Amino acid sequence: MAVTLAIDAMGGDHGLAVTLPAALAFLHRHPADRVILVGDEAHIRKGLARQRHGGDERIVIRHTTEVVGMDEAPALAMRNKKDSSMRVAIDLVRDGAAEACVSAGNTGALMATARFVLKTLPGIDRPAIASMMPTQKGAVCILDLGANVDCSPEHLLQFGIMGSALVAAIENKSAPSVALLNIGAEDIKGNEVVKRAALLLRESPVNFVGNVEGDDVYGGAVDVVVCDGFVGNVFLKASEGLAQMLRAFLREEFGRNWLSRLSALLALPVLNAFRRRVDHRRYNGASLLGLRGIVVKSHGSADILGFRCALERAAEEARHGLIERITAHVETLAPAHA
Amino acid sequence: MAVTLAIDAMGGDHGLAVTLPAALAFLHRHPADRVILVGDEAHIRKGLARQRHGGDERIVIRHTTEVVGMDEAPALAMRNKKDSSMRVAIDLVRDGAAEACVSAGNTGALMATARFVLKTLPGIDRPAIASMMPTQKGAVCILDLGANVDCSPEHLLQFGIMGSALVAAIENKSAPSVALLNIGAEDIKGNEVVKRAALLLRESPVNFVGNVEGDDVYGGAVDVVVCDGFVGNVFLKASEGLAQMLRAFLREEFGRNWLSRLSALLALPVLNAFRRRVDHRRYNGASLLGLRGIVVKSHGSADILGFRCALERAAEEARHGLIERITAHVETLAPAHA
Repeated sequence: MAVTLAIDAMGGDHGLAVTLPAALAFLHRHPADRVILVGDEAHIRKGLARQRHGGDERIVIRHTTEVVGMDEAPALAMRNKKDSSMRVAIDLVRDGAAEACVSAGNTGALMATARFVLKTLPGIDRPAIASMMPTQKGAVCILDLGANVDCSPEHLLQFGIMGSALVAAIENKSAPSVALLNIGAEDIKGNEVVKRAALLLRESPVNFVGNVEGDDVYGGAVDVVVCDGFVGNVFLKASEGLAQMLRAFLREEFGRNWLSRLSALLALPVLNAFRRRVDHRRYNGASLLGLRGIVVKSHGSADILGFRCALERAAEEARHGLIERITAHVETLAPAHA
Repeated sequence: MAVTLAIDAMGGDHGLAVTLPAALAFLHRHPADRVILVGDEAHIRKGLARQRHGGDERIVIRHTTEVVGMDEAPALAMRNKKDSSMRVAIDLVRDGAAEACVSAGNTGALMATARFVLKTLPGIDRPAIASMMPTQKGAVCILDLGANVDCSPEHLLQFGIMGSALVAAIENKSAPSVALLNIGAEDIKGNEVVKRAALLLRESPVNFVGNVEGDDVYGGAVDVVVCDGFVGNVFLKASEGLAQMLRAFLREEFGRNWLSRLSALLALPVLNAFRRRVDHRRYNGASLLGLRGIVVKSHGSADILGFRCALERAAEEARHGLIERITAHVETLAPAHA
């Protein structure tokens, strides 16, 4: 299935310098797909010329006059910036002109605007942010990563359903295993919300396997990990911080003197292989799940490879009918939950 | 000041095989200190003989007949095992025979028994588990790590006071910086409990500097990080899991073929220096704070170096008057909180 992506070309820390080359790389890899570049037309044309790109009938430019700032208040951006590149990219999904949209802009504004423009799916109270992370055995989907700080057991149930549908779609697994992030594997552990969510998930159509602890997540014990947005955000940021620290320590130790620098040179192929394996850019692209349309958020600081991975994620979700899968899952729930 | 440590010699995955050599190494480094080895006297004597230890007036053996199992229910262990090595080690602190006790046994049983035997300090509602972790700039104290899954703002305030006193005592800092773990640096971020805790901490005598995110913790932005036990446990376990995964990947890449194995050999001094720097054994020893006595929990799987570090932690806390420091801090609080 050919996919058209609406790209917020102005979003993120680097704007067009990243979004344009990433879009071209994406089109190069997917000859049947199309992109709509949303943003300042003159700048986009100049940017494409700089990329020595002569034009392509698979690229459409949609001119907009406004940009949402990275620190802008979400509610204000949503209300006032009706001609922003972010808003119009989402509008294109609502209108059926694109199957999915991608933005590296302000997360809060993207979530608020997407929710306002697209609305949530029937049976979903709150959209969640989901992302894939590397594990010892492959990858794991974890949600929510920060959209919802206070969650009810019903919200966690809905996250489980959406995460299961996401992994089924992009990893082609028929019944992904779903677990609750908890502070012990036993059923009696955790706070009241998590305990009640376990009861709901056990009765639901997802393949619920119980609780996992933080270390099991990286061990690759399950396919989907469900938690509230506060806990998920702490999990994500703690991991980013630790990885950064270890990288800095490794760089310092290898740079300490000429002997260690020499050994770094000799170990370069190994260190590069290691780096590729945990390259966070390959996991860039968080899915805003639970909306009536596909929206993927790229890290604001993503480079070309990172942003291209977010585009790939959005295209995959569209190609494998993510929205239909979530809808079908929610419909099988008892009416009390749906 | 000379310190006497009561050691649960039977606790942990390895029992005497770890606790005895660690106790001897501790005594070797601290010629004025003493230990009371609590456990099965015959086994302890045999173990000491195996260590070729002829006897030392600084070692006292306190015979006990029971052991708390690693999976035993905390409430049952507390009620029924009155002659366990864990219980008697805590009793010795209560009775003033030892300044601090250390156990590698069952965390839940240790917390329940310590709370029952020692009681909490005036002004402290719930004890918390605190541990030091490495950062890019040194070390950070984080609490609670799992004793309290549901916390009120007042509990978080008390954790801040206790963590501040701990860092002041063992790191010799006069006004350690204290922050709340949150999902954004701005005051408006986070859930209701965290927002109200920020107000309480701002009025308190501790050096409260606001919110930190998970990645700032490893950056070394602050001295003390406060969170509820659910979030803290997720933080800790996620970090353990990620570190384990990265270690496994690095080992795999260096072991892939003869060339990579050769480069590993050449990089060995660097890799060892790196390993020493993030050696979790050096950070072993979690403090049970808020009790009328010093109790340190060692990781159950700790080796000799790890367990010795837990003994050092307990001795440091006793030497620098941790309990008196916490008490003094709590007393400066407004009566409404104390």
